[in-house]
Amino acid sequence: MAGRRKLSGVREVRPDEYVITSEPRPKGRAERFWRSLRAVALGPAIPSSAEKHERLNTATGLAILGADNIASSVYGPEEMMRALAMAGTGALFLATPLGAAIVGMLVILAISYQQTIRAYPSGAGGYIVATANLGALVGLVCAAALMIDYSLDVAVSIASGIQSVTSAVAGLAGGRLPLAFGVLALLTLANLRGIRTSGFVFAVPIYVYILAALGVLALGFAHWAMGSLPPYEPPPAAAQELSSASAGIGLFLVLRAFASGAVALTGVEAVSNGVPYFKPPEADRARRTLILMAIVFSMLFLGISILGAQLKVVADPTEVETVISQLARTLMGVGPYYYVLQGATFLLLVLAADTGFADFPRLLSLLAQDNVLPEQFAFRGRRLAFGNGIVLVAILAAMVMFIFHASVSGLVPLFAIGAFTTFTLSQAGMALHWWRHQEPRWQLRLAINAFGALVTAATLLVEVVGKFTEGAWLVLVIMPLLVLALKATGGHIKRTRRAVAVRSATHVDGQFHHHVLIPVSELNKAVLHAIAYTSSLCNTHPSRHCRRGVPDVQAVYVTDQEKQAEELRDKWDKLDPGVPLLILESPYRALVPTVLRYIDELQAEHEDQETIVTVLLPETVPRHWWQQFLHNTIPLQLKGALLFRKGTAVTSVPYQVSG
Amino acid sequence: MAGRRKLSGVREVRPDEYVITSEPRPKGRAERFWRSLRAVALGPAIPSSAEKHERLNTATGLAILGADNIASSVYGPEEMMRALAMAGTGALFLATPLGAAIVGMLVILAISYQQTIRAYPSGAGGYIVATANLGALVGLVCAAALMIDYSLDVAVSIASGIQSVTSAVAGLAGGRLPLAFGVLALLTLANLRGIRTSGFVFAVPIYVYILAALGVLALGFAHWAMGSLPPYEPPPAAAQELSSASAGIGLFLVLRAFASGAVALTGVEAVSNGVPYFKPPEADRARRTLILMAIVFSMLFLGISILGAQLKVVADPTEVETVISQLARTLMGVGPYYYVLQGATFLLLVLAADTGFADFPRLLSLLAQDNVLPEQFAFRGRRLAFGNGIVLVAILAAMVMFIFHASVSGLVPLFAIGAFTTFTLSQAGMALHWWRHQEPRWQLRLAINAFGALVTAATLLVEVVGKFTEGAWLVLVIMPLLVLALKATGGHIKRTRRAVAVRSATHVDGQFHHHVLIPVSELNKAVLHAIAYTSSLCNTHPSRHCRRGVPDVQAVYVTDQEKQAEELRDKWDKLDPGVPLLILESPYRALVPTVLRYIDELQAEHEDQETIVTVLLPETVPRHWWQQFLHNTIPLQLKGALLFRKGTAVTSVPYQVSG
Repeated sequence: MAGRRKLSGVREVRPDEYVITSEPRPKGRAERFWRSLRAVALGPAIPSSAEKHERLNTATGLAILGADNIASSVYGPEEMMRALAMAGTGALFLATPLGAAIVGMLVILAISYQQTIRAYPSGAGGYIVATANLGALVGLVCAAALMIDYSLDVAVSIASGIQSVTSAVAGLAGGRLPLAFGVLALLTLANLRGIRTSGFVFAVPIYVYILAALGVLALGFAHWAMGSLPPYEPPPAAAQELSSASAGIGLFLVLRAFASGAVALTGVEAVSNGVPYFKPPEADRARRTLILMAIVFSMLFLGISILGAQLKVVADPTEVETVISQLARTLMGVGPYYYVLQGATFLLLVLAADTGFADFPRLLSLLAQDNVLPEQFAFRGRRLAFGNGIVLVAILAAMVMFIFHASVSGLVPLFAIGAFTTFTLSQAGMALHWWRHQEPRWQLRLAINAFGALVTAATLLVEVVGKFTEGAWLVLVIMPLLVLALKATGGHIKRTRRAVAVRSATHVDGQFHHHVLIPVSELNKAVLHAIAYTSSLCNTHPSRHCRRGVPDVQAVYVTDQEKQAEELRDKWDKLDPGVPLLILESPYRALVPTVLRYIDELQAEHEDQETIVTVLLPETVPRHWWQQFLHNTIPLQLKGALLFRKGTAVTSVPYQVSG
Repeated sequence: MAGRRKLSGVREVRPDEYVITSEPRPKGRAERFWRSLRAVALGPAIPSSAEKHERLNTATGLAILGADNIASSVYGPEEMMRALAMAGTGALFLATPLGAAIVGMLVILAISYQQTIRAYPSGAGGYIVATANLGALVGLVCAAALMIDYSLDVAVSIASGIQSVTSAVAGLAGGRLPLAFGVLALLTLANLRGIRTSGFVFAVPIYVYILAALGVLALGFAHWAMGSLPPYEPPPAAAQELSSASAGIGLFLVLRAFASGAVALTGVEAVSNGVPYFKPPEADRARRTLILMAIVFSMLFLGISILGAQLKVVADPTEVETVISQLARTLMGVGPYYYVLQGATFLLLVLAADTGFADFPRLLSLLAQDNVLPEQFAFRGRRLAFGNGIVLVAILAAMVMFIFHASVSGLVPLFAIGAFTTFTLSQAGMALHWWRHQEPRWQLRLAINAFGALVTAATLLVEVVGKFTEGAWLVLVIMPLLVLALKATGGHIKRTRRAVAVRSATHVDGQFHHHVLIPVSELNKAVLHAIAYTSSLCNTHPSRHCRRGVPDVQAVYVTDQEKQAEELRDKWDKLDPGVPLLILESPYRALVPTVLRYIDELQAEHEDQETIVTVLLPETVPRHWWQQFLHNTIPLQLKGALLFRKGTAVTSVPYQVSG
């Protein structure tokens, strides 16, 4: 192109192909300010090429992919003991067998997921496994379950994290909800900034927590062995609760306690989802990490349950102090060790919430790629983050935290259903996978996954029955609705894509009749500009000349006053702007409907041929955007009315006022 | 036009001029439903020709134009007595001299406004008189004062009306605010429906009220003359209030009581504003009506004040029972007469609020005609009502009612300032009018209006000082801000109109370079449709042919993935849709900014000539409007970004999906 003045940040790589790395010229002070604000809040843009995947070894793999599962050892045993305490301290002895059952369950899950790693070495979550093996509908059920699971994961982890803080500083308990919202806001912002947390950042709090918690447990068991366990002093509210404990020990109590404790199993699937993030040999490292995670989790869960039962520790009904805090306080006293443990616990739980922030948008982007959700969920923003998904999970988590006042024991009954639905469907899908593929030793593999599916299905049933009245019913209502919504959305998107798809070289017929209307309220420079615009579309010089090329251009004036119409007609004839003036008298002063009615008329005129009517709106653009409100709102109303109308197009032709 | 199939409701009156009386074809069930809903709620459209002005005689004139003033006899004396009661029943004797002073003031105002009627026989409110004689800025001060005055008039009248209801049915007192909002909603709806209240409808409650109230007063004075006044029993809260009365009788108490009572003078100006609504001879009838109104008002105000003081009636501090209700109850007992009086009082006050609903939008339409406010305030809707002004006054009244809990005595301190500012400026303007016009006996006329201005200015000062801490300060803050806002708005509107005005036949130069960009995300039917659209603008047949006429049409694809770009390029080359494909690589995945940046580039290319860039958006239109949310939001984002941009136009080309 001749005479081009090069601007920075635009590079022609080949004909008709440019790389553009700079931002457009800001339109004014307001936009410049807004851009600086965005840069400060969300950071500079990150190019796609800068995306890097840190490859994980077993230690960082445990930290990043195991955070969610390990973190649930904080609230899992606690919720189990809370359920038992309803029958008094006498029921606490059940913590040991129930803890063992949950650890047994984890072993089954770990073995099952070993098989998923083998079958999908490039990584696969429940949605992919279920869709591939059980069909699209079951895949959507799995997706809905995961969406609920991830949202609740964020909410529960943050709520439990705040409890770790109030354990150490009881005075903060009154501000639980604002604190939780503060953490949520920070996490949202960090994720929108596209901050990639390195394995090292994850590793520090998780290993500090593991070591410190195991230290407390070791000391406790040592004291127990020597018969020197210190006396336990429950939080005041817990003591009261116990004295009024009324439930008897029955099957239902045991089921409910198991259902509460099983919540801790959420997050087990993370390692098998993340196989490709490991250093080669990926599958081997992933399997090793899964085994390591199962061992650490089992030690923590069992240790806390058994020692807690021995000390007769009671979950605080006001949710100010956690069970881990009570154990550490009783065995170690409140000192530096205690504070390091609480701090690490808090950070661990925040990182666990962060995994929900990563997984939810990634799931939504998969759904968008599969045309189940609108494509904006697959769009990565200027900071490489799936902005829409991040904002959505933040809103959902904020809603449930608000409804349940950031109470862990209020949220837990809702939590496990999503996770166990996914487990069941994913394992069932794996079983079918082996049946279909019949690789060496497929019978054993099928048996393992089928058993896994059976056990998780049974647990799902326990969750539903045991927690039904406590909130599980809500999930049972929402999940089917969510599935229906996903199905409807996906159906619509796929139908639309099919309807507009072009496969052959047969073009859409361009033979339509074209009519241009320019609504005017007076004859001013903006109108003349719009008229000049129609002429320039044909690139022939004098505007008078072009009008013959463009068949039907009319200026339209709507009025209820004949006198005003005559005045405009006189002015129009005198100044002769080059297009005819059409006057529409509307006795009802209805500008927009009258123009629409006239368009109906134009389109009815040529029945044999499609008539496209372009409404050309001369818009006076003030110097400042807020001044727009001081002008006529008619163009906006017309745009709104024509938005979804067949056979019409709307063009805004802005005329910049210099004065 | 040949081959035209005539549609109903479109009539060609001469070439290029149609009368359109029918609505456009509804787009679907949703729109049909919405239209029926609107028809039920707001009624059918009213043609401009159907507007009729009922001409008033003295009796209906008093009812329609006097309603506001007469209605204030309900709360004026009451608020005066409330102020006096702060010094105990001993201060109530002051009601008589203060009542006399207020009536004296009314006489002065009535004489002053007689002169306005003489000078402006076609009717003129404070805004017109002040603008004509004292200049635009003083006119705006007057307009601001009137806007505040009318909003508060609506709020106070409704609040007082609700008090008339709770006087009769004390049990409703708890629902005061919801009841007030209900009345406000009904009034808003009635006004949006464009209901013209006939003089007869106004006349019934006002005359029933006048007769019933005068009857109570006559009975009271007869009893007094015969020394047989029945004993008075104050409402419980009033008795308590009296026993704790602590203020002494001082100048400030008198000033405050006068300031409260003077509120009753609002509405005096209505008759002079409405001269043209009278039957001829208009001015004579208006003058007679004004005199009649002054007499009725004086009798009511003085009668209530004197008899109230004699009976030692105390205003109810809980605002459940009005003073008039207390008088009627004491003298007549609670029977049919009492209920008729209360009912008429309620209706009268609702009609008084209705005058605010009529006056506020009319003032705003005057301001819009004078280019002080945007023209939508001068626009009359399909029911001939100034919809925007009606909605605005309803919102303002709702706000003040909410803030002051629909309490009359809470609102009254704010009320009179606006009215007395208008009185003062209007009288001062009249004085200047006589000075300039020097008609026969101009000296006397000038003296009368100057005296009126002086007295009202003094009263304004009393209002400000006496009520400053009770809320008057708020009006003193809002009024100057409102004046500044009106001045800024008017300045902007006038500057813009001057900037776009066309007076000579010199046209805007149409010689600009034209470039059309079609942003695409794939090659589909919507894109082909948009390409066909550009071609059809020139009305030459094969689309290939036309492209040579339209100089620069480019499809634009923005991506961060070279592979996707290559795929689209291959498909494009294969199908050859007729326009070149331009690929913009954006490493930051920023679609909208990248397109904008490229537009900058295009516009910088031809520095000697203005370049207009038209962004043509192929939009897939789903069958139901809500499905739009399931599609890409990029077109919407682009429209927003280009809205106020110089040298760009946006065209939406909808493609209707049939599937």
